[in-house]
Amino acid sequence: MTRKPTLAVVGATGAVGAVMLQILSQHADVWGEIRLLASPRSAGRKLVVRGAQTEVLALSEEALAGVDVAMFDVPDDVAAHWAPIAAAQGAVVVDNSAAFRMDPDVPLVVPEVNPHAVRVRPRSIVASPNCTTLSMIVAVGALHAEFGLAGLVVSSYQAVSGEGRAGVDTLRTQLSLVAGTELGTNPGDVRRAVGDVTGPFAAPIALNVVPWAGSLAEDGWSSEELKVRAESRKILDRPGLPVSVTCVRVPVLTTHSLAVHARFENEVSVERAHEILATAPGVVLFDNPAAGEFPTPADVVGTDPTWVGRVRRSLDDPTALELFVCGDNLRKGAALNTAQIAELVAAEFGTA
Amino acid sequence: MTRKPTLAVVGATGAVGAVMLQILSQHADVWGEIRLLASPRSAGRKLVVRGAQTEVLALSEEALAGVDVAMFDVPDDVAAHWAPIAAAQGAVVVDNSAAFRMDPDVPLVVPEVNPHAVRVRPRSIVASPNCTTLSMIVAVGALHAEFGLAGLVVSSYQAVSGEGRAGVDTLRTQLSLVAGTELGTNPGDVRRAVGDVTGPFAAPIALNVVPWAGSLAEDGWSSEELKVRAESRKILDRPGLPVSVTCVRVPVLTTHSLAVHARFENEVSVERAHEILATAPGVVLFDNPAAGEFPTPADVVGTDPTWVGRVRRSLDDPTALELFVCGDNLRKGAALNTAQIAELVAAEFGTA
Repeated sequence: MTRKPTLAVVGATGAVGAVMLQILSQHADVWGEIRLLASPRSAGRKLVVRGAQTEVLALSEEALAGVDVAMFDVPDDVAAHWAPIAAAQGAVVVDNSAAFRMDPDVPLVVPEVNPHAVRVRPRSIVASPNCTTLSMIVAVGALHAEFGLAGLVVSSYQAVSGEGRAGVDTLRTQLSLVAGTELGTNPGDVRRAVGDVTGPFAAPIALNVVPWAGSLAEDGWSSEELKVRAESRKILDRPGLPVSVTCVRVPVLTTHSLAVHARFENEVSVERAHEILATAPGVVLFDNPAAGEFPTPADVVGTDPTWVGRVRRSLDDPTALELFVCGDNLRKGAALNTAQIAELVAAEFGTA
Repeated sequence: MTRKPTLAVVGATGAVGAVMLQILSQHADVWGEIRLLASPRSAGRKLVVRGAQTEVLALSEEALAGVDVAMFDVPDDVAAHWAPIAAAQGAVVVDNSAAFRMDPDVPLVVPEVNPHAVRVRPRSIVASPNCTTLSMIVAVGALHAEFGLAGLVVSSYQAVSGEGRAGVDTLRTQLSLVAGTELGTNPGDVRRAVGDVTGPFAAPIALNVVPWAGSLAEDGWSSEELKVRAESRKILDRPGLPVSVTCVRVPVLTTHSLAVHARFENEVSVERAHEILATAPGVVLFDNPAAGEFPTPADVVGTDPTWVGRVRRSLDDPTALELFVCGDNLRKGAALNTAQIAELVAAEFGTA
């Protein structure tokens, strides 16, 4: 006998939550009841999912009762507290925070790369990677399967929605403050124009790029840079993989881009890389500069796949490829991957 | 006997020319007459240099007569034609175009890195590097002198003024078209908003990043990417140096940024790198993330040095450093370096 499992969306009212509700309405309907949960202050709001107005409930033990799969998109500390409670009540938790990603008893899953990992979840928790890792790992994973990855050097071009609604609002406000001015070619111009509208960023983000994301970790690294390294290693099951990352925020609303220098164990060719990327699930190869074809955030935003272009073989190293990849940080980078993991779990119900 | 040499500024009316006139007014006055030259259609305009209104003359053999040093900032084809004419008339040409940079009989000079090279100029032409190369090479050259460079992986965040006034005007217009809208989170939003205001860019540049600069070269590389590789090798006198570059345009008006992964022949330390960068001429070390200190274009624009921050040693390779560097592409990246080279040549007059 099969039944459709009950899903809880924890953090339904956030930026990622909004995208999650869209995705739940667009995807094949594997879910029975969908319960929307959020902080007490959002309780009572009504959101549309699968075409129906649905009231948001306050997150509580009672509200989690009977839930089969709980998708969490909440701050790390909230996830750390509530995910084990949901798991103890019988739910499989799919968590999009950083709270459990490096826990050896929690698999870190990208369905196109390591779907098998979802089945081994001793804590009943499955983690979804950071949006920056997710924006490249599907493409890199496909190439790794063929050539054997030997090292990554990554530079990011990260959208402001990685900082949630506050990031988006800050960029929009700053843009309105600098638009139409002649500002921007003398030192301090942009800082003066944006004044104290800095939001979550360490420097102005309009007409600027900011080489910082996350919090300060050891030796000058940002937490975001260390996440990309640690998560890539875990997802690809290559614990010693050399990974160097520089994370930079850019004035783009949504969709992260990454310039990736990938070294492999074997000689590579652009032709073979094209074949792999053209057929890899979850990847769109968009690589014809002669025709002006390469991915940019403006074209990729709102779509599901990882887009790959600018594929080149290093002129000095026949084992290295250069790529430029774009992925919507709210979709594949967050809500979509979480939903895909949840659907892998739901499939277990279908065969119970 | 010494005399002050006569300087010609060829291309005085362009975006770089405007910055050049500022610099000539700010620097110690090593020049006698300063003659402003441009295309015939700009002749007759008056520009201010050293506080004096100066009429722009049409570029011609006559206008070059008696010139000791001619600084060229004009398109490649114009430089290719006119620089040898100026040289034949006795001028030392300092050329900021790509026309002569890879000519083995033309030195490619960055005064902080290879000032000695300026003296060997069989064609009486000295080339100044591309703005992207210049935005990093002073910092990289200082580290190379200590540790011995073994390879570079570079990703750029290039300002629109690298495409001249058309680039700046295009970004300003596009920003006014997207400012205040809710556009930018659905595919095609930004393209629809900017319509046919694309200027010199292959995709919208407002609310976007575009992984393309220059023209299409072989095997999917852009001309800009190949320039950074070839020029870095020539300036550092390391013909076989492995260099992988991805050039990306970002919605910043002026100041290029680069994320640099630099491998060296010897083990490196952040402490020693800090010491070198803190004392290297033409470099500002600005690297204290705990205090929010790292370079961004908004803070660097309008200044002369190369700013360096985010200095980290690779966690997986004790011979590799990560850096984030910013340099004003119109100043050090163009006008300033050209002026510095011209001043090196002028110094020869002072000791004649």
